[in-house]
Amino acid sequence: MSRRDILVTYDVNTETQEGRRRLRKIAQICENYGQRVQYSVFECSVTPVQLEQLEHEVVSAMDKDEDSIRLYVLSGGREAALRAYGRDRYVDFDAPLVI
Amino acid sequence: MSRRDILVTYDVNTETQEGRRRLRKIAQICENYGQRVQYSVFECSVTPVQLEQLEHEVVSAMDKDEDSIRLYVLSGGREAALRAYGRDRYVDFDAPLVI
Repeated sequence: MSRRDILVTYDVNTETQEGRRRLRKIAQICENYGQRVQYSVFECSVTPVQLEQLEHEVVSAMDKDEDSIRLYVLSGGREAALRAYGRDRYVDFDAPLVI
Repeated sequence: MSRRDILVTYDVNTETQEGRRRLRKIAQICENYGQRVQYSVFECSVTPVQLEQLEHEVVSAMDKDEDSIRLYVLSGGREAALRAYGRDRYVDFDAPLVI
């Protein structure tokens, strides 16, 4: 099934222990589908079914009164959409590994 | 000229005063082109020329060793790309204002 590149961005008040716990939970979910590229930004490559699952899981984990979650579908794909500067956490696990 | 919807996401260590200063500066630049939707996520609608200007300005304001800036072009447009949950800072300034 065709995969789509998506972004998940998350806003939480990490001043509270509950907030930090929720951020860890959201990050854990997103990392099952893709990877963290900034503190609260995750890039995931998902099938349509996985997108629905991911969406359901992160929305279940958030506090709707306190947090904000935004999912963006990068319709042209990640490579075409992105310009990145500075420190980069992204690792391309699909590329051949050269040691 | 045709406008494109883009995202700017910013990662900075705001534990330092310098980091907080840089975040304020980046936010100020982005708000000249669009609006803040999360603490470090900005949605902007820009012409190709404005995109180059914005990119130049934010990259000049960042510390490349400390910070990360990612620009994503939402090729299908913001409305088609986005699913938002929870607290929403976004205000549609192009929509008719109903009071």
